[in-house]
Amino acid sequence: MKKILNQRETIITDMLKGFVKAEKDHIAVSKENDRVLYRKEKQEGKVGIVIGGGSGHEPLFFGLLGKNLADAVAVGNVFAAPTPQTVLAAIHEANQGEGVICLFGNYAGDVLNFDLAKEMADTEGIAVVNLAVSDDIASAPKEYQVDRRGIAGDLFVIKEVAAAAAKGYSLERCQRIAQECNQRTYSIGVGIKSGTNPLNGKPSFILNDDEIEYGLGIHGEPGIEKMPIVSAKDLIKKMYLALDQEIKAYVEKEVIVCVNGLGSTTLMELYIITNELIDLLENKGFLVMDTVVGNFCTTQEMAGFSLTVQILTEELKELYQMEATSPHYFHKEGY
Amino acid sequence: MKKILNQRETIITDMLKGFVKAEKDHIAVSKENDRVLYRKEKQEGKVGIVIGGGSGHEPLFFGLLGKNLADAVAVGNVFAAPTPQTVLAAIHEANQGEGVICLFGNYAGDVLNFDLAKEMADTEGIAVVNLAVSDDIASAPKEYQVDRRGIAGDLFVIKEVAAAAAKGYSLERCQRIAQECNQRTYSIGVGIKSGTNPLNGKPSFILNDDEIEYGLGIHGEPGIEKMPIVSAKDLIKKMYLALDQEIKAYVEKEVIVCVNGLGSTTLMELYIITNELIDLLENKGFLVMDTVVGNFCTTQEMAGFSLTVQILTEELKELYQMEATSPHYFHKEGY
Repeated sequence: MKKILNQRETIITDMLKGFVKAEKDHIAVSKENDRVLYRKEKQEGKVGIVIGGGSGHEPLFFGLLGKNLADAVAVGNVFAAPTPQTVLAAIHEANQGEGVICLFGNYAGDVLNFDLAKEMADTEGIAVVNLAVSDDIASAPKEYQVDRRGIAGDLFVIKEVAAAAAKGYSLERCQRIAQECNQRTYSIGVGIKSGTNPLNGKPSFILNDDEIEYGLGIHGEPGIEKMPIVSAKDLIKKMYLALDQEIKAYVEKEVIVCVNGLGSTTLMELYIITNELIDLLENKGFLVMDTVVGNFCTTQEMAGFSLTVQILTEELKELYQMEATSPHYFHKEGY
Repeated sequence: MKKILNQRETIITDMLKGFVKAEKDHIAVSKENDRVLYRKEKQEGKVGIVIGGGSGHEPLFFGLLGKNLADAVAVGNVFAAPTPQTVLAAIHEANQGEGVICLFGNYAGDVLNFDLAKEMADTEGIAVVNLAVSDDIASAPKEYQVDRRGIAGDLFVIKEVAAAAAKGYSLERCQRIAQECNQRTYSIGVGIKSGTNPLNGKPSFILNDDEIEYGLGIHGEPGIEKMPIVSAKDLIKKMYLALDQEIKAYVEKEVIVCVNGLGSTTLMELYIITNELIDLLENKGFLVMDTVVGNFCTTQEMAGFSLTVQILTEELKELYQMEATSPHYFHKEGY
């Protein structure tokens, strides 16, 4: 493994220390639990937003702590859910008496630990709602949308639910928005070259030089099929057809799009991909309101990418358009 | 080569099309030259900011078109300077009658073509100032600072000079600031694994599994030495000592820092690196005002990173603190 690290045992600690030093004016470590970071500036009287999950997917999750974004983050080990105690500490940092909503990817370990933390918070009288993001259409069929994994769709769900909280909406309303937001968010990914797990130095999968993994998960979970590498045009067409099955029935035609790099796929490639995807969406009568391109949900230095489409409602659009600022994502209307 | 592209001949066109589609509300293609993009919204009566250089380093340069940032970009082929005609068209898009300042990396082809464009603009009565960024301390000794290559230091120079223009400063004052800014900006890079030139599918250099290239350029130019891979702590100490030779004599002790990824080095590693670097700077009595961590100046999917330190003056600090927004970089005080 060729990575610039110190001891493998301290990679999470070293990383978080570096992040907090870089963002010292805005972000601090929880005194209760050093795997919890929170935004220092508080907006009074709003629902708290906790996000979290395994490490190794940076900038998710801690890179989204910020204004009109997340209040606290629970950081797990590499590709491993944060402990219930860590999540509970994040809930404490985010709680301002109006309840807390926790947003995380739909993986067994995360679901279990966030549920345990919710139970613990309940006994303390803190109202907590959990929402497991499940946008990866390759991981389960349409009828089992709630069983799907969470991948880059996290970004839009966090953005919009955090905006709802920042607008002062109740926990109940935030929960409804989170569910709707998640239901309307669809992603599909492709792996081109494996990343390396920094703990054991091992690749998460093996592919031949001319092969790609279609529909893989962000921990290198097997996809739908291994296929030969094809042109951007042909690949995006295939991926779009899968997305179209999910989105074509909607009456609403306005969408937002994320082209997410998994680590080492170049921005050059991501914009070539974007060019193909937007053409396909527009040809099918969709109106692309906004497009976000970059590395948001990665798997170390994996090459590959995912496409995310969210079908907007008027309410979600308004939430999406709210200004937001964090170390690794921002949204501003007009610039 | 395992990249998601269409024909190699159209990679620049396809990439720019995708970028303009993603940023359709804010950025447009010049009618004069399709390798020139510009920001649609104009701030009247200010010095125009043109940036540019070869492709393959995304998000530099086009990702920095934006509010209080660049007005127009001249896009070259992969690792090749934009033509004088392309630069001239970018000057036309940025010009508002107050003169134009062009900022680019210090490479022979760029210097030549920007100089030719300046001459052409002069004959049209447009006052143009060129500033070749030369921050890479590994590429020439201290006495020959103007001969050094330009790498990630571009980011701070563009940020601050564009802020000066946005404040309505004259071309002369912007030029003085650009020179000072460049003189006070010092970078050093390390290559860990080569990227691939998307035109010919070739790696830009070859290293053994346990070797890194210390002091390499962003096109894979050879560095100062090949050395065995060491811990983050030892490597950053070595790099810091080289930087310290450049910065220790300054009376001013306030600095800004950029930890720039070259493509496939993970954010996890970049923050581990950040942790070491900030400790070293603080131990030497420097006050780190702000730290930026991410991929700004890349070499395709090269693994590696660079460290940039700029010694602030009161004037540069004020310029740095001005709000700025673009697709791939933003600055906001407080969030």
